[in-house]
Amino acid sequence: MANVYMDHASATPVRKEVVEAMLPYFHEHFANPSTVYDMGSKIKQVMDEQRENVAGLIGAKAEEIIFTSSGAEANNLAVKGVSLARQKKGRHIIISAIEHHSVLNSARFLERLDFEVTFLPVDEYGLVDPERLSHVISPETILVSIMHANNEIGTIEPISELSSVCREKGVFLHTDAVATVGKIPVDVNELDVDLLSLSGLSIGAPKGIGALYFRDNLRLMPVIHGGIQESGRRAGTENVPAIVGLGKAAELAARELTETARHVKELRDTLVTGIQKKIPQVKYTGHPERRLPGHASFCIEALEGESLLFMLTREGIYVNTGSACASKALKTSPVLVAIGTPPDLAQGSIVFTLEKSNTAKDVEYVLEKLPHAVEKLRALSPIWKKKVSN
Amino acid sequence: MANVYMDHASATPVRKEVVEAMLPYFHEHFANPSTVYDMGSKIKQVMDEQRENVAGLIGAKAEEIIFTSSGAEANNLAVKGVSLARQKKGRHIIISAIEHHSVLNSARFLERLDFEVTFLPVDEYGLVDPERLSHVISPETILVSIMHANNEIGTIEPISELSSVCREKGVFLHTDAVATVGKIPVDVNELDVDLLSLSGLSIGAPKGIGALYFRDNLRLMPVIHGGIQESGRRAGTENVPAIVGLGKAAELAARELTETARHVKELRDTLVTGIQKKIPQVKYTGHPERRLPGHASFCIEALEGESLLFMLTREGIYVNTGSACASKALKTSPVLVAIGTPPDLAQGSIVFTLEKSNTAKDVEYVLEKLPHAVEKLRALSPIWKKKVSN
Repeated sequence: MANVYMDHASATPVRKEVVEAMLPYFHEHFANPSTVYDMGSKIKQVMDEQRENVAGLIGAKAEEIIFTSSGAEANNLAVKGVSLARQKKGRHIIISAIEHHSVLNSARFLERLDFEVTFLPVDEYGLVDPERLSHVISPETILVSIMHANNEIGTIEPISELSSVCREKGVFLHTDAVATVGKIPVDVNELDVDLLSLSGLSIGAPKGIGALYFRDNLRLMPVIHGGIQESGRRAGTENVPAIVGLGKAAELAARELTETARHVKELRDTLVTGIQKKIPQVKYTGHPERRLPGHASFCIEALEGESLLFMLTREGIYVNTGSACASKALKTSPVLVAIGTPPDLAQGSIVFTLEKSNTAKDVEYVLEKLPHAVEKLRALSPIWKKKVSN
Repeated sequence: MANVYMDHASATPVRKEVVEAMLPYFHEHFANPSTVYDMGSKIKQVMDEQRENVAGLIGAKAEEIIFTSSGAEANNLAVKGVSLARQKKGRHIIISAIEHHSVLNSARFLERLDFEVTFLPVDEYGLVDPERLSHVISPETILVSIMHANNEIGTIEPISELSSVCREKGVFLHTDAVATVGKIPVDVNELDVDLLSLSGLSIGAPKGIGALYFRDNLRLMPVIHGGIQESGRRAGTENVPAIVGLGKAAELAARELTETARHVKELRDTLVTGIQKKIPQVKYTGHPERRLPGHASFCIEALEGESLLFMLTREGIYVNTGSACASKALKTSPVLVAIGTPPDLAQGSIVFTLEKSNTAKDVEYVLEKLPHAVEKLRALSPIWKKKVSN
């Protein structure tokens, strides 16, 4: 059977070069980098090189990178770390209505500690309006957190316009760039952000590693308290093999980004055109142009995304419905609700995220199988019957 | 040159069987366990099996295990997670004076949130007195956190006696068992603790993985907020390869524990007797009997532990001075201060932690080289000259 995997936003195979780079750090160079003797200090040096690689991918300095255990932890550290360190200046933060759960629930936690949180609405494409942001910033505001791109609808936010607003008002801006780093050019100076989160698992590094960029000397309360690792901002023995893996993946991503983006955009465009041509009553969600190159998302009328997923699985096609973390927790995606999708239509969400390894043949195969699957499900749907009989 | 590594408490090589078990989960079985399709649910199943393995090592049920990114994170989740979830019942917690930085600094963080923290003193061996604990528990007390054993002085705390006190007073007891799990039998029911932290890196699993045992249904505020992974208690895509590694290491540790403990105890006893015989003016720190089987720690008069470490490194011997996390942060170890070691003597701290791979030849080699190194350093020491001339 075919095996067409188009759910790379949920997880991507670790690249072979990355696993190879990691291997010596499991039982050969295994020492704790905090130890004072040479076995440890050599590993500390390797870690510094990897920090350079990761920094290089986003135009940062090595000392501005904190390694974390995931993109989610990086988001926690940004939102809670800045808020708790700056609470004497004010207790108001702003996030968008479509942030990842790790940003959203960090903000909810801060509410319990008497912070005030404003949830900024987005337009029908999922875009945050810089002018609207400007209006809700108050003298109490200490942090704004707006994601770089949304993994469910693909929309890329106007971060540099939002950062101009924040800069003018003297407020820090964090962006969750888990969806963009390694997919499109990301430069912390061009974006002019103060903090940026990234994750290993979406760029071919293993699960269990992420990083937070924080502008030099910015104060942060740790999320994981303890020893003085990561300049005292993140405790716990450093995960050396995973750090080496992230560094290698960053190096490869920097080299291949332009070509990969061109490749997946071409495939994605064929996929989108094909689906719109072959399947009636589908809504292409997110922004039609300002979106991730390998990302296509739809709401298909009169069916359930999860049923469609299962039917596609039987044909060896793997896609997603809603974001990976939320998929089991919620029936209706809060992101689709935020962009004004009617609840019925939101049920039919389907998300394709393509990578370098996907081929024109994969797309062809999906365009052959998907319309049949949709037809079959709709044939069983009373809503669809009612619709076509009208 | 010889290579005698006796700093296993800082880091241990990942076992080959463990790396082999992990490998298929990097690029073959790579899917996100939260996805609804079969690729994901198969991995979810593998994770559940590993949870059984880890639970099995400590006599717990699989559903009582939360995977974290380190022992330090597990300690944070226990101390902050319980305190923040139970703050309506009271705002007082108790920890010992010799806890790991991850417990200590979690408690310090809670102080900033208006919790009150009592630091319980220890005796000259590093033991916490159950009666003394009983006296400091108040109606406001919600949590006690006492480590199972201390990695710097090897002392094993009387946890089941301490838990009787806590049980009687209706207070939760957490124990940081990073130093004991896999080294001595650890059973959560015998110890009768409510929470227990463990770490992968000390049992031959990779860095970047740990776990928290929490008694069924105990409420916990997450440290990493976000999605509903780990029953909503720890967000972030699960680190599947590392979880598989931890499971495998736990399985091997359970099987080999008795034999390994016997082996390292024998070596340790030879080492201790030899050092006490060959080097004048050394103090064996920690409890002489109630201690980790592969653990030997000394304070050597009239020299600096760090200088001794460097001299030993030149002979291919790797040991530690103070705990790995603290070693770069502090000159005098807070643990040695807590057991009443005079500051001068505390400077000469040296810690040996032995594992299965260590041999009688290793011990012999150390007993040959160490006395010479001590002699050389003392020859340069004005304190020593003064001492011997008296």
